[in-house]
Amino acid sequence: MKAEIIAVGTEILLGQINNTNTTFLAEELAGLGMEVYYQSVVGDNPKRLEEVLNLADQRSDLIVLCGGLGPTDDDLTKQVTAEHVKEELVFDERGYQNLLAFFEKRERPMTENNRLQALVFKDGESLQNSTGLAVGIFYQSENGPSYLLLPGPPNELKPMFFNEAIPLLKRHFQQDEQLISRVLRFYGIGESELVTKLADLIKQQTNPTLASYAKPNEVTLRLTVNTLDESEGKQKLDQLEKEILSRVGDFFYGYGENNSLAQVVVRLLKENRQTVSAAESLTAGSFQALLGSIPGASAVYPGGFVTYSEETKAQFLEIDATLLKKYGTVSKECAEAMAQQAQKLAGSDFALSFTGVAGPDSLEGQKAGTVWIAIATKNHVESHLYHFNRDRNYIRNSAVMTGLDLLRRKLIK
Amino acid sequence: MKAEIIAVGTEILLGQINNTNTTFLAEELAGLGMEVYYQSVVGDNPKRLEEVLNLADQRSDLIVLCGGLGPTDDDLTKQVTAEHVKEELVFDERGYQNLLAFFEKRERPMTENNRLQALVFKDGESLQNSTGLAVGIFYQSENGPSYLLLPGPPNELKPMFFNEAIPLLKRHFQQDEQLISRVLRFYGIGESELVTKLADLIKQQTNPTLASYAKPNEVTLRLTVNTLDESEGKQKLDQLEKEILSRVGDFFYGYGENNSLAQVVVRLLKENRQTVSAAESLTAGSFQALLGSIPGASAVYPGGFVTYSEETKAQFLEIDATLLKKYGTVSKECAEAMAQQAQKLAGSDFALSFTGVAGPDSLEGQKAGTVWIAIATKNHVESHLYHFNRDRNYIRNSAVMTGLDLLRRKLIK
Repeated sequence: MKAEIIAVGTEILLGQINNTNTTFLAEELAGLGMEVYYQSVVGDNPKRLEEVLNLADQRSDLIVLCGGLGPTDDDLTKQVTAEHVKEELVFDERGYQNLLAFFEKRERPMTENNRLQALVFKDGESLQNSTGLAVGIFYQSENGPSYLLLPGPPNELKPMFFNEAIPLLKRHFQQDEQLISRVLRFYGIGESELVTKLADLIKQQTNPTLASYAKPNEVTLRLTVNTLDESEGKQKLDQLEKEILSRVGDFFYGYGENNSLAQVVVRLLKENRQTVSAAESLTAGSFQALLGSIPGASAVYPGGFVTYSEETKAQFLEIDATLLKKYGTVSKECAEAMAQQAQKLAGSDFALSFTGVAGPDSLEGQKAGTVWIAIATKNHVESHLYHFNRDRNYIRNSAVMTGLDLLRRKLIK
Repeated sequence: MKAEIIAVGTEILLGQINNTNTTFLAEELAGLGMEVYYQSVVGDNPKRLEEVLNLADQRSDLIVLCGGLGPTDDDLTKQVTAEHVKEELVFDERGYQNLLAFFEKRERPMTENNRLQALVFKDGESLQNSTGLAVGIFYQSENGPSYLLLPGPPNELKPMFFNEAIPLLKRHFQQDEQLISRVLRFYGIGESELVTKLADLIKQQTNPTLASYAKPNEVTLRLTVNTLDESEGKQKLDQLEKEILSRVGDFFYGYGENNSLAQVVVRLLKENRQTVSAAESLTAGSFQALLGSIPGASAVYPGGFVTYSEETKAQFLEIDATLLKKYGTVSKECAEAMAQQAQKLAGSDFALSFTGVAGPDSLEGQKAGTVWIAIATKNHVESHLYHFNRDRNYIRNSAVMTGLDLLRRKLIK
């Protein structure tokens, strides 16, 4: 099963946006056992898109197009592909209702061009868009390849792929053999260190296979087994997982493609019926915002403080100003006082504090990347010093993730 | 001058790394006035790379390849391209010296495969690598296209492009005509509404051209003119900009490719020597985290509160608990009290508050997406009710961006 990805959009050709959709689709298609041999990008130009489709027809079984399903004149993926496969465009009933509901709710008139987003192929299947307006399309040609058309905005493409495209692709292309995947998630170990520790397993891999993926501040391992028998396949994965965790288990925090450190922490807090608060300086609310991004966070997080200046540290948290003057705000003493006071004021089981130098400039004679993180309970406080690298926002993000992992380790004790 | 970008690497095909090199090269080549009509990705496979090169030969004047210049067995871009253009590979003197120096410094033996990184085309030009070992290559074929081979690691590719490739490309392909671009940024108007209002301008565009790009909660317009005379070109852009702003100027907030609403707000606050604080409920610190992401934010933002629960609203902000009970936390009264108290406690010129329903579930009988935002100064408070759409994090982000825009409008009054 050879698949190929075509991203459509002049803004990608001009380098104005990163082509993250292709990366996402490539990884997901590989997970479904499809071989992606080609990726390409073409601008919003009918002639060149047609050229690229002709080429793809010759070399691929499944052609995945993303982008160009929107309402503007330069959105023409659907029109060009329809003409390419000689399909008539018709309105999708559910997609059209979705459009009407959207504009009714906003009390704005629906312009003519917006209607085009509900057009689909007469003999194709529609993929509903739970987070936007453009309907996706799957079409299997008689003797040629199949086509999958997805919207360009990542927040529309991803849910559509997970909810609609995966079941559809499995239905159409399922084989007797099945691929079973398991994703292990690690925090606190770099990809190169991880693969070094697993070098022999990676080298001798055949079935299951083992692949590592690095994202900022996180590494995942995907174990995939190709099997005729589900329980035998799972057993093989269990065996490999056990071997992996015997070496790097200390850094393992969870399973699954979509299971962030923040999700795990919120789940553990819920299970323990405990709460967390925070007092943030350099991270300026990022830690709390990340907790708040998880549905149901209100059960475990009552609120907290952002004390960016020295004055607000003293005032909001009722910290002795002379302590701040004596030790500076980038200090163990300040971090511990912040965490203790946040815990006390919020009445939470835990409180974390973050204080340090986000950069680019130094602060109090300390280099950008210097960060103190403290964690307090009613009767205990401890703090840790870190030296993070790279730019301002990478440093802030590293601090947030490190804080989450500190809390996670307390919660599983 | 038609250029095309080919990224080589199986790790990109599998979606293991983002193809940021192509984005970078696309933007830089566009800036040099080259038209990039195609981008593609091919794995570490000689046959398929040769296929892609044959195709590129037919449609492009300059073929830029990146990746596959390293020392391992699967690095074969140089070898395949040399064979493709029938060029002999020879050692580059400077590149070889660089290799020797590197291994001498590290006191490690240079393995045979490492030497390959200094190989270049006999009749080509070498591009030195200031941050790595693989030498780049530029080669102009007799009657066909030109080829530019660059290393894959972004920290090698970027300096090589800036220091070596740009001067070389200018020398070989300098044109009298130049492209001048201007980016206008809008908030509070959807892409489809914007293009509807500018439909005639978009339809009749030739020179300058006009293109719109939508990102979550933001639309940009890029105006590009092709001109022999710089001041004449700028005049044309001024004219078009004036016409655009006469129609949608109310939503315009700034210029430039990298100029977010948060950057504009921090700049305006600095210029006005004013400060802002916040009390956040559903946004849980996101507004403050976004301010904190801008270098130098400490001059305009002392800190603030995240009051996620009803109790912390009463306690941290000293709001009368009976008011919260009477009106609920998703109310005008709560929002205004939060903003007023945050302003007072932080002693800031402005304070914003955010309270509402992030979802997915309803709260206090109000639907997900219902959000109150208030903005307070010492002597004034006002609040606005919004109904945002889509998922939890889109709703939270919409609230943050709307708050920023409310503040911006106050600051430019």
